[in-house]
Amino acid sequence: MIVVTGRVQIPAERREEFLAVAGAMCAASREDDGCIGYRVYEDLEQPNRYVFIEEWRDDEALQSHFSQPHTGTFMGALVPMLAAPADALFHTVAATLRLDPARGLVAVD
Amino acid sequence: MIVVTGRVQIPAERREEFLAVAGAMCAASREDDGCIGYRVYEDLEQPNRYVFIEEWRDDEALQSHFSQPHTGTFMGALVPMLAAPADALFHTVAATLRLDPARGLVAVD
Repeated sequence: MIVVTGRVQIPAERREEFLAVAGAMCAASREDDGCIGYRVYEDLEQPNRYVFIEEWRDDEALQSHFSQPHTGTFMGALVPMLAAPADALFHTVAATLRLDPARGLVAVD
Repeated sequence: MIVVTGRVQIPAERREEFLAVAGAMCAASREDDGCIGYRVYEDLEQPNRYVFIEEWRDDEALQSHFSQPHTGTFMGALVPMLAAPADALFHTVAATLRLDPARGLVAVD
């Protein structure tokens, strides 16, 4: 799996515009082949900061996502909104464990 | 590195209580040895859902964090607030790339 965290800073006056753009991107990306998860969240300690958490089956799925029209549309809308450079980390995951309340840490396929 | 995503669902009427508990946990955990990042965020599409993103140097740091008093205090306060079982994923990361606007994808130490 590849886990992406994409952190962005958006001026307060562009919040609603950002929410519309980000929500559309999440909904479209969740339909992409190999997308396990794609959500946007707001930082509760640092105002005007947001993070996208993306989970992809593999690099092929991520590369295919990059080539989708909605990705281009999103980047074109997002970049002019940024108050600071985005901080995007792409983690290639070797193993994932899930904390199961009944069984403790168990492997995730 | 180990990246943790801890997703929780909290009843709306306990939001302020959750924010206080979560904020204290984030601040304390960022001081733990081997903590690279520890933040809490609110889901912008799904009401009453939140995620913690934690970044740890290695498993030793994560295990040490588990044994800290603030972790026990946090879990004791959090669990009774949960509207559904938490979903905590522990990703052992093989490699991390950062998207550099000038240089493209570059390795992160």
